[in-house]
Parts: sequence; structure tokens; C-alpha cells
Amino acid sequence: MAPGAKKGILERLDAGEIVFGDGGFVFALEKRGYVKAGPWTPEAAVEHPEAVRQLHREFLRAGSNVMQTFTFYASDDKLENRGNTPRFSGQQINEAACDLAREVANEGDALVAGGVSQTPSYLSCKSENDVKAIFKKQIDVFVKKDVDFLIAEYFEHVEEAEWAVQVLKSTGKPVAATMCIGPDGDLNGVSPGDCAVKLIKAGAHIVGINCHFDPMTCVKTVKMMKEGVEKAGLKAHYMCQPLAYHTPDCNCQGFIDLPEFPFSLEPRILTRWDMQQYAREAYNAGIRYIGGCCGFEPYHVRALAEELAPEKGSLPQGSEKHGIWGSGLEMHTKPWVRARARRDYWENLKPASGRPFCPAMANPDGWGVTKGHADLMQQKEATSKDQLKVLFDKSNKSN
Amino acid sequence: MAPGAKKGILERLDAGEIVFGDGGFVFALEKRGYVKAGPWTPEAAVEHPEAVRQLHREFLRAGSNVMQTFTFYASDDKLENRGNTPRFSGQQINEAACDLAREVANEGDALVAGGVSQTPSYLSCKSENDVKAIFKKQIDVFVKKDVDFLIAEYFEHVEEAEWAVQVLKSTGKPVAATMCIGPDGDLNGVSPGDCAVKLIKAGAHIVGINCHFDPMTCVKTVKMMKEGVEKAGLKAHYMCQPLAYHTPDCNCQGFIDLPEFPFSLEPRILTRWDMQQYAREAYNAGIRYIGGCCGFEPYHVRALAEELAPEKGSLPQGSEKHGIWGSGLEMHTKPWVRARARRDYWENLKPASGRPFCPAMANPDGWGVTKGHADLMQQKEATSKDQLKVLFDKSNKSN
Amino acid sequence: MAPGAKKGILERLDAGEIVFGDGGFVFALEKRGYVKAGPWTPEAAVEHPEAVRQLHREFLRAGSNVMQTFTFYASDDKLENRGNTPRFSGQQINEAACDLAREVANEGDALVAGGVSQTPSYLSCKSENDVKAIFKKQIDVFVKKDVDFLIAEYFEHVEEAEWAVQVLKSTGKPVAATMCIGPDGDLNGVSPGDCAVKLIKAGAHIVGINCHFDPMTCVKTVKMMKEGVEKAGLKAHYMCQPLAYHTPDCNCQGFIDLPEFPFSLEPRILTRWDMQQYAREAYNAGIRYIGGCCGFEPYHVRALAEELAPEKGSLPQGSEKHGIWGSGLEMHTKPWVRARARRDYWENLKPASGRPFCPAMANPDGWGVTKGHADLMQQKEATSKDQLKVLFDKSNKSN
Amino acid sequence: MAPGAKKGILERLDAGEIVFGDGGFVFALEKRGYVKAGPWTPEAAVEHPEAVRQLHREFLRAGSNVMQTFTFYASDDKLENRGNTPRFSGQQINEAACDLAREVANEGDALVAGGVSQTPSYLSCKSENDVKAIFKKQIDVFVKKDVDFLIAEYFEHVEEAEWAVQVLKSTGKPVAATMCIGPDGDLNGVSPGDCAVKLIKAGAHIVGINCHFDPMTCVKTVKMMKEGVEKAGLKAHYMCQPLAYHTPDCNCQGFIDLPEFPFSLEPRILTRWDMQQYAREAYNAGIRYIGGCCGFEPYHVRALAEELAPEKGSLPQGSEKHGIWGSGLEMHTKPWVRARARRDYWENLKPASGRPFCPAMANPDGWGVTKGHADLMQQKEATSKDQLKVLFDKSNKSN
Repeated sequence: MAPGAKKGILERLDAGEIVFGDGGFVFALEKRGYVKAGPWTPEAAVEHPEAVRQLHREFLRAGSNVMQTFTFYASDDKLENRGNTPRFSGQQINEAACDLAREVANEGDALVAGGVSQTPSYLSCKSENDVKAIFKKQIDVFVKKDVDFLIAEYFEHVEEAEWAVQVLKSTGKPVAATMCIGPDGDLNGVSPGDCAVKLIKAGAHIVGINCHFDPMTCVKTVKMMKEGVEKAGLKAHYMCQPLAYHTPDCNCQGFIDLPEFPFSLEPRILTRWDMQQYAREAYNAGIRYIGGCCGFEPYHVRALAEELAPEKGSLPQGSEKHGIWGSGLEMHTKPWVRARARRDYWENLKPASGRPFCPAMANPDGWGVTKGHADLMQQKEATSKDQLKVLFDKSNKSN
Repeated sequence: MAPGAKKGILERLDAGEIVFGDGGFVFALEKRGYVKAGPWTPEAAVEHPEAVRQLHREFLRAGSNVMQTFTFYASDDKLENRGNTPRFSGQQINEAACDLAREVANEGDALVAGGVSQTPSYLSCKSENDVKAIFKKQIDVFVKKDVDFLIAEYFEHVEEAEWAVQVLKSTGKPVAATMCIGPDGDLNGVSPGDCAVKLIKAGAHIVGINCHFDPMTCVKTVKMMKEGVEKAGLKAHYMCQPLAYHTPDCNCQGFIDLPEFPFSLEPRILTRWDMQQYAREAYNAGIRYIGGCCGFEPYHVRALAEELAPEKGSLPQGSEKHGIWGSGLEMHTKPWVRARARRDYWENLKPASGRPFCPAMANPDGWGVTKGHADLMQQKEATSKDQLKVLFDKSNKSN
Repeated sequence: MAPGAKKGILERLDAGEIVFGDGGFVFALEKRGYVKAGPWTPEAAVEHPEAVRQLHREFLRAGSNVMQTFTFYASDDKLENRGNTPRFSGQQINEAACDLAREVANEGDALVAGGVSQTPSYLSCKSENDVKAIFKKQIDVFVKKDVDFLIAEYFEHVEEAEWAVQVLKSTGKPVAATMCIGPDGDLNGVSPGDCAVKLIKAGAHIVGINCHFDPMTCVKTVKMMKEGVEKAGLKAHYMCQPLAYHTPDCNCQGFIDLPEFPFSLEPRILTRWDMQQYAREAYNAGIRYIGGCCGFEPYHVRALAEELAPEKGSLPQGSEKHGIWGSGLEMHTKPWVRARARRDYWENLKPASGRPFCPAMANPDGWGVTKGHADLMQQKEATSKDQLKVLFDKSNKSN
Repeated sequence: MAPGAKKGILERLDAGEIVFGDGGFVFALEKRGYVKAGPWTPEAAVEHPEAVRQLHREFLRAGSNVMQTFTFYASDDKLENRGNTPRFSGQQINEAACDLAREVANEGDALVAGGVSQTPSYLSCKSENDVKAIFKKQIDVFVKKDVDFLIAEYFEHVEEAEWAVQVLKSTGKPVAATMCIGPDGDLNGVSPGDCAVKLIKAGAHIVGINCHFDPMTCVKTVKMMKEGVEKAGLKAHYMCQPLAYHTPDCNCQGFIDLPEFPFSLEPRILTRWDMQQYAREAYNAGIRYIGGCCGFEPYHVRALAEELAPEKGSLPQGSEKHGIWGSGLEMHTKPWVRARARRDYWENLKPASGRPFCPAMANPDGWGVTKGHADLMQQKEATSKDQLKVLFDKSNKSN
């Protein structure tokens, strides 16, 4: 290793280090005014680089060890598919995103990961070659810009994820692969364990879950992946990058189907204390690459880093502006607010919504549409959610 | 008016224009990693100007017509009071904040407002002269940096607010004054109407409410101010800069006393659709300076601007990345998500919290402590909150 | 007083005794299968005397000192108005109801009260003479059957209540009068204080509130009555017979307008511990005739009697089957259930609904219809309910 | 069959008839003042026969085809175990209960079922002979009084239930057996399917579930029984007598462990519409003996009978006082209440709790205590409840 060179992702994970991922760029930048909900495409890398750079910096400061290139949905078929002639080519966007990630990564010890995600081409039944060609175009930029490793993320079908991994693998760079599925498996019903086995066989070094479900569901699903992998006599590293929204009421397609998606998810946002619990659970489950996806803001990543600071051996830079477990409140003028400067207060608080006219849980849309799969699920172990759904959901009445 | 010169705040309001304020810097920057909860002081203006500049830009892009200097709690007595030797002088911070606000204001049509807020000196019973001297130090910077107008904001006692207004008034610049009170009035029980009259007599051109309560409570309180002012035969402009948190369960001291303050307020965050309703209510109430305070993110301000775009005559720049009433979802792949691309869907949705173990409302802390005032309140008209509190709150049992 | 004769209602109240009323016959008997929701008429007194007798006995056993004749809505105009030719004359029903009440009253120390309630005749604008004639027919039965005192209850308009009181007064028996209104007053906007004054001037010895609102709202309203009476230099006894449903979200017409009325009110039912708190609050407010209305089951009345047993000087007979504050659980096999056998456990418990898809509060129907009154209310002091309604209720948007 | 003789339970079920059970005597009579919570023993059969008779009548009227003798916990060891010298012998109580059930059964077409339930003897590890001797004593009464069939109900351990069935079987009368377990099986982890097989092999003609869980959970558990039975190549009739409380948040020991048990369960009470949905689900699952347990009031049974009236071919007598789907409201004076007289209104209503300070779900007590079983459960399929529990339950943090 050259003097001053950073340790690679696999060296870190092989050594048992915790690696903190970053948070959710498209959702954060939507709220900041730079990404349009619906298309969710990342033209901002070219249009407003200062906004993207700033968000990278905030995650770096919060403890992220990886700067993912802001290239979600930046495949040419997706960019064209959005209806308008794109103002920027896919190559422009991917290149700009690589430069921004690298610039900020170099301000600290972070690595740059080039990311690809599922494509309209796959959903419209294009051939394996066509789909792989789409991935190849993005990969070419990542190779040219020499990112440190590659991530295939946000796949609902393991077959497409395998194709992506095969393309990524061809670069010789380390490959991570995450699917946006829950315990029920991919949209064809392939179980999390089987998905993980397939991804590893396709060449992934790191496997796991991102997006679509809340942290605890994602940790649970990664555990199922790990069990499948170990049963198959294989080995891998594990990663987890969940939503920052509570989704106890999702069906197999995740938060997309919740009625609140994407514009009224606010009441579901996790607190920093929820995040600390997630970090601990993920760590206990043997997951060492721990980050976030949609809804994750810099302070959420900071919470992960603070929870696992003893194991990691360091606090993130951003903690200079954060009292552990609310200790900053010790300086408050009111005694009853000072009394909140302690761990058990925040751990035990059940935060009120301030919304007495709103329920705690929702019935996902698309329930009927995914009926085939729902029937499948009913054969399986019960969930209280299912039971309640049966009770309340009129659409199930005609069964 | 010099060619190219911007219209001043009073010219705009006198002409009946809507002026959009900005959002909550301390809360937003705390989540981004640059402000410490507890002290809540604005050293970041010097330490991390790029982060402050970026946030100003996002608000400008979202439609804000005013860049408030990031000088909340930047009085010398507050900065010293925080326990540590401050690394930067108050003057440094105030100057840096002015420069950042001006830089971004000049990127658009926005004005710069220099802001002062309540002081530890007043709470520790310093003399009128001492307190005024504190304000004077900040004002000197604002005059030197030639801000466009001045705001005295976040006052719990009208007496201190009057002193602030008198100092601000002495500069000859337009003066706005907002208190962080609800319908019950200031902490000495002075009614909103009387507060407003006092502020106007002290020299304020614009009066209103900021922080501590949710938008609808703040609009209601400004209405009470307006009634008081009109009854006194006076005239003023009105402004409103509320929280972005639902607080139906507050007592007279506002969200500070809610158990969730400040680290578990997430479930209370208003959606963009809540904000549109606030904008409409504020406008209907005759309020023309409409902005936000703690919790307000850029997309919240954008929602205000979009709701009142017909009245304002223009959409904010940031709306290029936002489909009105969710219209961006029209391009979604799933038909049931596309079906959400319409106004009545979002207006009628009652968003779930995803937190079935949590309640909708909370009992504020400090209820006992402010008992004197609570007794006073019980003499007044009932609220369902009161009734429920009596029902559930054991501390009232011994009455 | 003849040897063995019971003390009359006024003797008891004059002596400062607590008098416990009974509970809600129409709702309890609807659940038992003897009253039809909608008409809510009391034919069961003739059709199923054993069911009515049993319910009287349960209330007696629970501590009730008054057996109200089961004659709610038993005026001839109401019975005819129900669409079908009534199978029994009003006289038959009223007589049977008197006999049942007397029979059970004589099993203990209870008094019999003959009750009249508001009439269709008044609502269809019949003359004072016509309305009074309706009351007179029921009263004639009560006189013939020699009930101990009379109650005019469930009036939404004080004018009709005054007419009823005048008729009742003519018998020479003690007269109680309760209205089914909340703090906003009767449906013509007459305040609770003014209503009480009018009722006393018409001849009532006891005034108060029954039905339509939850206990705490009713206690509050009776307090307002008391203030009005004292201000007018008058004197009276006070009574309170509220719902056994939580109704923080009612408008001025009470629970009728809640969407859950009358078939889905279950989640709102008060616990026995809520009832103990009501009993204490009522007692502290100077109310000495304390009972219940719709939803009140025998165990609810028992809870009133247990809470005020120290003041009353005795426990009800039914307490032989009830451990105070859950002490019966001391014999439970599971240690964590035994741990619930204590007052502070039950006082502090916030019971879960088991309904995560349901909200905590509802928007009353008929809001628009009663708009005139709603406008009036908006002039008054704010309630959090109002604020929330404004926020969530689209129907208010066009204001 | 003698002329006028009633058809037996097996003749009815063999013919495919629906048989409606009755509801929950101990809970209903506790609220009426005749049973003490904690001991829950049925002395009232002797002490207050009129109260027990009346409740039988209400259930008969509501549509019940079975009058269960009010003999829950009426084994001698239980009656003695309650700490006090029992005022009445077990034999007295059991005989009185048989007479009351028979008297009312003869007022209609109902059968009398003699019931036994789990014993303290089993829990204190008495021998099979000792436990069977306890059952034998009750059975002797049932034989003497010539009940129509026998029910062994409320067993948490299948072994004890088998013993009971063997004793019941020896009488030659038809035998039903229900356990108070959920999908996780009995407290030794025996699955519902295996439990059912064991009960049938022990001699039961009818198997199923009663108490401890809400209707939908019970239907689901009976389904699992049925699957087990069919897989074993056996045949049986199925019955279901669940709680009338929503319990989505229970662990394997059911509602006993919920913090609200037994004195604050009110917000969880099912509406009549929830009950109609239960009846339909149970029927669709092939269950033909459909009744209720704790919390079930007469109107709940009436709702079962009304939902399945088309299949049953008749409405219960009690429906003369009930408009189907709220049709009785058609006569209401307010148009917006009249608008509620329709099925889809009540089916779709999500009833509010009126308790904004309370949550929707609770953490069961005893979670730690049953940890062994909980660990077991975590190996199984996830439930949203588990996930949330992990998230919120501090006691799981140390895992």
C-alpha cells in the first residue's frame, strides 16, 4: 500500500472494521430543492454541484466512510424515459457525480463508491445483453474516474441484480450488491437467503439490503440473507442501508405502496435515538457496513457513528456539535428540560405525533394488485399486521 | 429609488405584496451538523460559512424574499453564558452572518434582515440600560453592514421586546418585532393584542409571532394581535414565522415544554400540504409577511410560495424541481402511485405515524411549575386539551 | 317523617349527602337486546319487564340512590312519531316503568324519579300549551304512581326545559332539570349559567347536565352553571349525569354528531378508573347528585360509589364483588399480573386501543350545518380542537 | 328422535348447520356486579340466579344455540384455592348452573353444554389421576343433570386438555374441546395442528379455540388446527369462541399479559361490525360452531347471527330490536345521522378512541419471563409486532 493511500473497502471489512455508509441523496436534495420527486433523477450533479458537494460534506462530517456517487437512476434509459429530452447526457451526470464524490472523499478518509440501480430496460423485458449494456455505460465512467469500489443497489428482482453484479465484477473492483426487498423476498418470491447466495455466486463481495423498509425490517432481512449464505457454505460481508421511516405496515413492495409515499412521510421519520438502536441491532447481527437510504439525513448517520463509537474507536467530526444522549441540554435554563439530558429519558420516550386525527398505521395501496403474492404470504406465518388487515381491509372481504 | 435597487420591506408591504420569510436555521443546521442543540448558538457563520451560505441559497431558491442574518442568540451575554470561552467574538459572528446573508440576497431579489432575540441579561434582571447595551452591540454591526431592515424576534416578555424595538428604531431602519407566544399571551400574561400595541408604540412597523407554536396557533395569535391593534386605532403590518411542528398539546411556553423537545420532534413535522394550508390561512388573516421558524426546511417555504403563487404572481425558482400538488408522480410506473398525482388526494390524506406504540398527544413538562399561569388559564374558556389533561394528568388530582 | 320512610331527595341534598344517580338504560338495554337504536323508545318496560327490572337491580347494587323510571322518549308524540303504530300506549309504558322502578327501589334505600325529556312537538314548533300538554300526560302517571321526585332531562333548548319544569313544578314534588349541552350553551347559544338561572326561576330545585358529552366536559359545564347561579344571587343543588364515552372532539351538539354514533363508540368507553376521577372532580366542584347517562353500565356507577365511599360513609353492596383499585388481582397466578393490584398502576395506565389503523379523534358530522354557531365559537377563546380542525378539516378551507 | 326433542349438537353439525355459541359470562357479570375479577369464580349461580338467568336469556334472544353452564373455574380445587373458605360447594354451584342453563335453553331451541376448564391441580403438577378426579366431580353433576353435551375449554396445555377430554368422553356424551392458545401453540410449544390431533385422538368430536386472543387470531389458529387435522387424515368439527377485544399486540399468553388486563380493556372492545366480519371469516374457514368468550356481550352474538342469517336461514329473536346495518337510523331527525343508515358507512368507519394521550398498541408484560418462548418465536417468520417491539422495547436491547 502506497504511503498515505487509503485502505480499500475489503481490507477494512476483512479487518473487522465498521464502515459507515452515507444517507439518502434523492430525498434530502428533494427537500432542499434540487431533485424532482417522481423522476428522482440526479441532474443536480451537473446543475447544482455546490448543493451535492455540501450534502457529501455533511455526511462525511457525520461519520460516513463512503461517498456514494450521486448517480441513482442515472442510466441512460431512465434519464430518457422521464419524458423530457434530458438536458444532460448520462455520461455528463455520472462524471460530475464521480468528481464531487472524489473531491469530498479526499477531504477525509472516505472511499468513493460508484453506484448503479435497477433499470427500465429490465422491467420492459429487454434482453440480458441489452440490460447489461446499460450498466456497462455507467461502469465505463466509474472505471475512467477510478472509483474505489462499486455498488449495485435498489433491485427488486434478483435476476437483474445478478446481471449488474456480473458487469461490475468485470472491472476487477470490489463489488457490493443490495436489494430493496423485505423478509418476503424479491418480487418473484425468491427468498432473501437465496437472493444473497445468487449475488455472491455472481461475484459480489458484500451483500445486503437497501431502501423500501425501515431499519429493523432491513436488519432482519439481512439476517435471513446471512443464514442462507452460511447454509450454502459461502462467505460474504454484509451491509444494510434502510429507510429513515417507520414502516411496520408495508407489504412486500415497501414504502412505495404506503399512502403517504412520497409527500406525507414526515410522521414516520426516525429519531436519532431510533437510529442508535438500529446501529446496535445491525452490529449485533454481524453487519459491518451500516448506512442509510431515503430519509436518512446527516444527523441520522451521526447517530449510527455515535452509537458504535466504542467499537469504531472514534467519534465523527460532527459530534463536536452534538452532546451524546442529549447532554447539550444540561445548559438549558429550565430545570425540566435539563432533566432530559440523559440516555434513559430519550430511550424510553414514546414520541407523540401531534396528530390526533391521524392513525398509527395505514393500508398499503396496490394490495389487490399484488394479490398473487399476498396469497402466498397468507400461507406463511401470521403477522399481526396481516390479521389487522384482514379485519379492517374491506378488499379482503370477498375472499 | 436608484436603478436596480431593490424595493424595501415597507414599500413591498405597503404595496400589498406578499413577502416570504425564510425557515429555521438553528434546527436545520443542527441536523446538518453545524449547530449544537442546547446552546443553539451560531458560530457556524464563522466556522462553516459554506454550510450557512448553502442554506441561505436553498431558502432563496424556495422563494424566501428575506435572508435573516444567522445571528440567533448571537448577543455577547448569550455566547459567554454558554459555559465555554467562545472561540469567536460576537462581533465576528454577527459580521460573518451579515456578509453571508448579503452575498446570497444579492443572488436574487431578497432583502437582508438583521435579527436580535431575547437575552440572558433580561432574564437575570439586568437593568433596561444593560439590556439595551447588549442589543446595541449587535445593532452596531447591522448598521455597519447596512442590512435592509431589523427584526426583534423570539421574545417571551413584551417588556424586553419593547426595549429591543427602541434600540432598533434608533437606527432609522424599518423594524419588525415578533414574540414567541401563543393565544395566552406573554409569560407575564399580557395578551397578544396588548403586546402588539406596545410593540407598535415602541416603534415597530411590523408585528407578529415566531417560533414556539404550530402554524395555525400562530396565525390565530397574530389575528388576536391584529384585533388589539385595530381596537387601539393603530396600524401595522403583520408577520408570522411559526414552527414546522404540530403542537396541539402545548401549554403557554410552547414546544420547549413538550417531552419530545428537541430530539424526538420528528413525528410532529408538518408536511408540505400542511404548509399550504397554513399559507392560505395566514393570507386570509391579512398577514403578508409569511415565513417559518424552527423545523422549517426549504421545501416548507417552497410550499408557502406555491400556495400563494396566484396572489404573488410568480412561482419560486425551486418549483422547477417540484410538481404542484404531486403532479410529478404522473410519471410513476405503478398505477396506484400515479393515482396520487392530484390535489384532493394529498389534502385529504391523514398520514399515519408508523408508531403504534406512541400516542397522538403528550403532557407538557413544567405544567406544575407554571401552575400559577395554568390556574389563570382555567378561568378562561375550556379547551379539549385542558379537559383531557384534567382527566389524565394525575398532578391535577389533588386540586 | 313516618318510621321507616325514606328521606326525600331534597332532605338528602340539603343535609350535604352525596346522591348517586343511575346509568344509561337505553344504551345498556340496546346491547342486551331490548331497545332499538334509532327510535330509542322504552317499550321494553311492558314487553320485557324482567330485563328492565334486572338492570334497575344492578344499578341499585352498584350504589345508585335513585331509580329513574325507564320513560325516556315515552311521550305520546315521540312514540307515535316513530313511524309504526305503537303496540303500547304511552300510559301503559309509563305506568309499567313506574312500577318497575318502585319495586326495585323498595329493595333498598333508593328513591324513584319520574323523568320527561325533550319532545318532537317542541322541535316542530308546537305552541307552549301543546308542548306542556305532552308533558302533562306523562306527569299524570307519575303523580298517580306517586314517584318521589321528578326530572326534566335531555333538553337542547332551555325554553322547552323551562316549560317542562313549570309542568313538573305544578305537582308539588321536588324538581330536577338537566340539559344535554356543553360549555357553549344551548342550541340557541344561551350560556350554561343563563340556562341554570332560567331553570331555577322556572321552579327547579336541582339543576345540571346530562348526556351528550364526556364526564369532564359535563362537570365543567355544571361549574359554569353554578357560577351563573351564584352571580345571580340564587341557590340550587347541582347534578351531573354524563356519557360514559370520551368526547374531546365533539362540537356543540355532542356525541350525536361524532361519526361513531351510535354503533362504533366502543373505543371511547370510559374505564372504571376514569369514572373514579370523574366522581372526584364532580365532588370537588360542589356537585352532590352524581350519576351517568348513555354508556354508563353498573360497574361505572360502582366506581363512582367506591371513589366517594369515604365521603359517603359506605361502600355499595356490589363492592363485595370488586377489589378496590384492582386488589382482587393479588390472587392471580402470574406475578406480573399481581403487580397490577395497586392504585397507581391503574391511575397512570394509558390504555391502548388495539386499533393501529384508527385515529384518536374524529371530525364531527354536521359541522357545516351548525356553521352559524361554529362561527360564534370562533370568536371565543381557542381550543386545540378548533385549531386542529382548521388544520385538517377541508370544509373550513373556503372560509 | 322423540317428537319435539331437540336435535343434538353433532346432528346439527353433521347436517352442516351453523351453531351459535354464547358470550362471556364472567366478564359480563363482573360489569353487572356479580363476579369478582381476580378469582373469576361463578358463585353467582347460587347467590344471584336471577342475574345469571337474565344473561342466559339475553344470549338466547341474541341467537345463541348453546347455553353453557356458568361453571367456569367451578372445580373444587379452584374454588378452594381462592383463599377464602368457599360459601358454596362446587357441587352446589355446578348444579345451580345446570338448572339455570336448562331452564333458559327450554325457552328456545338451545342445547345445554356442561363446561370444565383448566385446573390449579395441573399447574401444581398433580398426577393425571388427581387432575382427572377433579374433572370427574364436575362431570358427575353434568351427567346427573343430563346436559346435552360437554365442553373442555380454556386450556393452555394440551396434555391437561387431553385428560379432560378423556374424562368427558367416558360419559358417552358428545365432547367439544377448545384451547386458549394462538398461532404459536400451547405453552409447551405444541403447535395448533398437533394440539387438535391430540384432542381428537383423546375423543373430542369438536375442536377449536376460545378466549385469550381476538377473533381474527382465533380464526387463524383454528385454520391451523384444521390443516393439522386434515394432514393427519382425521376429521372433526370446528369451533371458535374468541375474545371481544382487539389484541394485535399480544404475545403467546394472550390478553392476560396486556397491561390493560383486566380493568382497562374498554378501548379494545370490538364493535358489532367487527363481529360481523369475524362471523364471515369463521364461516369461510369452515368453522360452524361460532361463539364468543370474555368481552362478548349479547349484541355481539346478535351480530354473528345477523351476518350469517342467510346461511342459517333465520334471524335471531333479538333482531326485532335491531336494524340491519344501522337501518334504524333512518328515523333520526338529523340528516347527517340518517346518512349513516347503510352498510358501507359502518364497514369503512375507522372508529376514533377519543384518547389522544393513549397509544394504539402496548407491550405485553411478562415478555421477559416468557423469554424462552420468545426466542423460539424469533426463529420463526417475522411479525411487524416483533419488529416494533425490538425497536421500542428496551428489555430487548441487551440481546
